[in-house]
Amino acid sequence: MINTGSTVVVQSVVNVASSLHSFSLTCPHKKPPLFTSCCSFLSKKVVTGATHDLKPIVKQWPEYIPNKLPDKNYVRVFDTTLRDGEQAPGAALTPPQKLEIARQLSKLRVDIMDVGFPASSEEEFETVKTIAKTVGNEVDEETGYLPVICAVARCKHSDIEAVWEAVKYAKRPTILIFISTSDIHMKYKLKKTKEEVIEMAANSVRYAKSLGFNDIQFGCEDAGRSNKDFLCKILGEAIKAGATTANLADTVGINMPQEIRELVNYLKANTPGIDDVVFSIHCHNDLGFATANAIAGVCAGARQVDVTVNGIGERCGNAPLEEVVVALKRRGASAMDGVYTRIDTSQIMATSKMVQEYTGLYIQPHKPIVGANCFVHESDLHQRITDADLKATSKVW
Amino acid sequence: MINTGSTVVVQSVVNVASSLHSFSLTCPHKKPPLFTSCCSFLSKKVVTGATHDLKPIVKQWPEYIPNKLPDKNYVRVFDTTLRDGEQAPGAALTPPQKLEIARQLSKLRVDIMDVGFPASSEEEFETVKTIAKTVGNEVDEETGYLPVICAVARCKHSDIEAVWEAVKYAKRPTILIFISTSDIHMKYKLKKTKEEVIEMAANSVRYAKSLGFNDIQFGCEDAGRSNKDFLCKILGEAIKAGATTANLADTVGINMPQEIRELVNYLKANTPGIDDVVFSIHCHNDLGFATANAIAGVCAGARQVDVTVNGIGERCGNAPLEEVVVALKRRGASAMDGVYTRIDTSQIMATSKMVQEYTGLYIQPHKPIVGANCFVHESDLHQRITDADLKATSKVW
Repeated sequence: MINTGSTVVVQSVVNVASSLHSFSLTCPHKKPPLFTSCCSFLSKKVVTGATHDLKPIVKQWPEYIPNKLPDKNYVRVFDTTLRDGEQAPGAALTPPQKLEIARQLSKLRVDIMDVGFPASSEEEFETVKTIAKTVGNEVDEETGYLPVICAVARCKHSDIEAVWEAVKYAKRPTILIFISTSDIHMKYKLKKTKEEVIEMAANSVRYAKSLGFNDIQFGCEDAGRSNKDFLCKILGEAIKAGATTANLADTVGINMPQEIRELVNYLKANTPGIDDVVFSIHCHNDLGFATANAIAGVCAGARQVDVTVNGIGERCGNAPLEEVVVALKRRGASAMDGVYTRIDTSQIMATSKMVQEYTGLYIQPHKPIVGANCFVHESDLHQRITDADLKATSKVW
Repeated sequence: MINTGSTVVVQSVVNVASSLHSFSLTCPHKKPPLFTSCCSFLSKKVVTGATHDLKPIVKQWPEYIPNKLPDKNYVRVFDTTLRDGEQAPGAALTPPQKLEIARQLSKLRVDIMDVGFPASSEEEFETVKTIAKTVGNEVDEETGYLPVICAVARCKHSDIEAVWEAVKYAKRPTILIFISTSDIHMKYKLKKTKEEVIEMAANSVRYAKSLGFNDIQFGCEDAGRSNKDFLCKILGEAIKAGATTANLADTVGINMPQEIRELVNYLKANTPGIDDVVFSIHCHNDLGFATANAIAGVCAGARQVDVTVNGIGERCGNAPLEEVVVALKRRGASAMDGVYTRIDTSQIMATSKMVQEYTGLYIQPHKPIVGANCFVHESDLHQRITDADLKATSKVW
């Protein structure tokens, strides 16, 4: 190597962008002062349990309406660190740790946080309830930010009841009801026919609605290996029954970006009622495509991405929040027709570190966006660009 | 979570594939016995320094011809763990470690190994020479496998001479000559005009040829931010001067898969002489797209992928060999018109572990393909599929 004799910290191109708003950032990034001040630790003022019209004060953020996005370019971030992420072996969190991470996810400004599986244990139920009662009621008075609190249920009435009893205390409760839709899962795991699976799905959505939910996410597990027309049919029935978000999961991480794109395009074109709900994409990373697949979904029209902090989760984990969000921020305007999120990227590092510490899942030094080496070169083969670049070393995107 | 009480090791979908050859694997994977026996440690018989016609004995592997691939579906794997990978801060390897990794890369059957930057130091020069003299002459007599030994040079005669003096001892020596082609790099780093950069490139390729190279890789650094027509021009001139492989580098990791695809398509359509050389793609992982970008390049017609073991390298590293290779093996037939490599995937874990130990760059548990948790579930939400799946837990793709 042509070494400089010591490791040199320099600006990577990801960082270069942060100082070049004109290059790639449009609405709402044109008003950085608002963004940098509104959610910092010191300025955060929380109104708990107060009456509130729940409309965001920050004008660039669309009002939260369960089944639609007033701004077609806005992408919802559905964080599932505390549920799908915590399913990573050895990552079990204590209730206080879960609550602290939920508060941090609030600082990050995730739209929806999936915080657990209440039917699994009494402790899990109580933890979800605590988060719903606290974080789910804390409206940021400067910005109007309030997270939606979600928990998951299989297509079982007892699961759905447990979710309702746990999350109903939040100002904006939601539920993710899922069922497997691939032939292999339906045959060997569920041991059900296609018709039975459709009936279970529709019945479960109706039951959730009857309990009081007006915001219902319905997810197709193993959608990446499912028959496309069956997906259209089951999603159509779930929407008819009251689902407000339609979610596709590449549960086993087998899809390629072009397949996700084609699948989303096909379902958007052929599912009855799909234009009346939000389309969501949930990607796993078994082949290393989770980030690219989530982005491919957005490019095809999905407007909710399911992610976890540091990409944690079972096996090779989920699409990493930080990669998907920074890709949208860095390339949303220049390569994706202006899509954007409201994530406060200045909170990414703190969140990443907290999740590493509490789960024990430490990331590798070359992990994109949050790795220790992200901004470090050894050789000077590529690093001598400009003085301005060399000086701008802060990790803010 | 619905826990089973203890962590359960199960088969992921990636593994399921290994036992289902009819699902996704075509030539050359139809003959597994040959593949599993020919390169195991015990069966490897090496012919060092012997006269040899250098044609592979395994019929599915195309003969190595520098500027072309007799089989249009064959993808060359250019491993740069020992050069671009070793540029990761703190990853410095000793000469014996480099030699040992080179031998392991040989077991992995990489087509080309980029083993260093001889102009950087006397030690680096000697290490490259040792690898060229040893690993670069070891023909596997059962398969005919022989790696091409590469080292890098900037567009400087002294760099090129150093490479030649170091790698000329290999049976198949090559050189990667690169130069920056983006406006920002040419202006601030090289301080050269476009015309000067083109002349430096062509002159360097000619000089390498005059020294004895008949296999010359020419690379455009920061191609991802370069003017497309300028890339066509400089690559055209490099090809005219004698380059046999044209390489595009997304040096700063800023591109998205669709951009890589469009760029490769454009250059293949508009570069004089491009059909007479091999097209290569070199991706970095700053935004988390390196694997998807490398695969996008292959889908657009690139037939060489630059990778590093575990994806190590400066900042967020390079496209990980294991992810790109397994994606090609797992999805090459079903999603990419039958592209394939000759990598011995049973050697991936051993290689990954060796590189971790010697570089000190330990991967995270949820790292795709080689992470400790790749095949581990905690919840049983997704894991109950079939007995056959549950039994097949060996990490072989």
